[in-house]
Amino acid sequence: MSQDSVLVVGSIAFDDLEMPQGTFEGVLGGAATYSALAASVLAPVQIVGVVGDDFPAEHLELLRRRGVDTTGVERAPGKTFRWRGRYSKDLASRETLDTQLNVFADFRPKIPAAYKTSPYVLLGNIHPSLQLDVVKQMNDTPRLIAADTMNFWISGEPVALAALLKRVNLLIINDEEARELTGIQNLCKAAADIRTRGPSQLIIKRGEHGALLFDPHGTFFVPAYPLEEVNDPTGAGDSFAGGLMGYLARTGGVAASPHAMRRAMFYAAAMGSFCVEAVGSKRIERLTREELAARLESFRMLVDFGGTLALG
Amino acid sequence: MSQDSVLVVGSIAFDDLEMPQGTFEGVLGGAATYSALAASVLAPVQIVGVVGDDFPAEHLELLRRRGVDTTGVERAPGKTFRWRGRYSKDLASRETLDTQLNVFADFRPKIPAAYKTSPYVLLGNIHPSLQLDVVKQMNDTPRLIAADTMNFWISGEPVALAALLKRVNLLIINDEEARELTGIQNLCKAAADIRTRGPSQLIIKRGEHGALLFDPHGTFFVPAYPLEEVNDPTGAGDSFAGGLMGYLARTGGVAASPHAMRRAMFYAAAMGSFCVEAVGSKRIERLTREELAARLESFRMLVDFGGTLALG
Repeated sequence: MSQDSVLVVGSIAFDDLEMPQGTFEGVLGGAATYSALAASVLAPVQIVGVVGDDFPAEHLELLRRRGVDTTGVERAPGKTFRWRGRYSKDLASRETLDTQLNVFADFRPKIPAAYKTSPYVLLGNIHPSLQLDVVKQMNDTPRLIAADTMNFWISGEPVALAALLKRVNLLIINDEEARELTGIQNLCKAAADIRTRGPSQLIIKRGEHGALLFDPHGTFFVPAYPLEEVNDPTGAGDSFAGGLMGYLARTGGVAASPHAMRRAMFYAAAMGSFCVEAVGSKRIERLTREELAARLESFRMLVDFGGTLALG
Repeated sequence: MSQDSVLVVGSIAFDDLEMPQGTFEGVLGGAATYSALAASVLAPVQIVGVVGDDFPAEHLELLRRRGVDTTGVERAPGKTFRWRGRYSKDLASRETLDTQLNVFADFRPKIPAAYKTSPYVLLGNIHPSLQLDVVKQMNDTPRLIAADTMNFWISGEPVALAALLKRVNLLIINDEEARELTGIQNLCKAAADIRTRGPSQLIIKRGEHGALLFDPHGTFFVPAYPLEEVNDPTGAGDSFAGGLMGYLARTGGVAASPHAMRRAMFYAAAMGSFCVEAVGSKRIERLTREELAARLESFRMLVDFGGTLALG
């Protein structure tokens, strides 16, 4: 069966993670890595990013084994992007200790010809002008263009970001970013404001407190799946986005019904919940479709009230 | 139609609220007040509490107009319980500036004979020995005994609280209280621990982040209803509990199906969402069943994904 694919553009990195349970050096990371691994459980994935000459072939091999086309990964002379962070004891917050952009500093995404018809495009958190450049490189109008961004671009590149937003169908950001982007504290009002700027669909992630979808059909909420063990939140948001896009690509959904994107929110949240179970991307690297289906069933039970709320 | 009633025991108070939008002095408050007003939208309510000789007859008249039986409100010589608090700018936190227990210091709940067969009992946050004493005063075994508590009793009266927990079917607390009660950070693990201590059902409230139910059927989550205007979180948790009990009393539900308590969680959260719309109890004082039904329908849409999450 020929399936729609997901194009993921963004960072591929080494992370040094100082966790309460210990320090983990040189862990495979980066937004594109997490999103691609998550999406690959559900659909074929194409990845565009850059790595240095220190990036082991085995990491690319791992991605390929998971169904990720890595021909779009550029290998540049120098070192791979490296990020070092330290998490608080309860994992609720983290501080960046060091960021070495290395080869990522000069990253200019080049979309291979074979990728240019991909109907689902996920623009990871890079300079909004580069995100826009990816949109312009696509041959057809993709069915869904989703983008992430961050406070750094919101405050530093408002004009470029505004231009990008006009070309994006779905913006996926967290609550603090939504507030900074709009200057509005209330998330419902902030969402309405953002949706006037381009994206008809907006997801506001709230970490362990779930995520809100605002789209032409209304507002939808998906909780975070409650876990007994959380080991590392790194990449959870990127896995969320990957799971969302993978589900949509697999099912061909977006505009079909309001439910398509709402169900995708559960796949997204489920993927985020797997991601945090292990340090780095270890859990989603080996996640099976059967494990995912089982979690979705538990997830369904978590929110099942029998469908009606009328007093009768 | 003869309907099951809800017995509410707890504080009746004057609140002085220092809000970002201004200071409001002598606002009708107290856990029992909020819970009774919320429950009264759905079922007959009986209230047991104490007020001072400064408590205006109009407040009791208001309760009665809403279907609350106030014969259990004792009037004692002295002043009514008074609490003064200041909220942070984003309403996410508050500090207590002053607590004057006044007549509440010597409150010993006396359950009127006519209340002693009430099948739904809500024990507001008072000394656990007094809560237990209420349980002992009931004639029949109530269908559901629900209790709230707080950090003050968790740390100060662990033995009395442990004795109470053995007699309670449903404990309703917030996330910090669940963690303090158990010494366990993870809420799923904390919930499992608490449920070994007596209550087979546990609700952990997370304020604007919704609430979790842990019961013999599993774990259930209800989000907080997203609002464009939040004016005063005071009493939201008590309104939540009142809405829950009111729904159960109205529908006769508890053990009937796992869905009864889960639907009750939505009525609880809806009542909490109305409560925060106005300062004090003003919004739930005038809330109609029609307004409640409309919010429940919006709430249903907020979580509607079409029922199935299977990939097919």
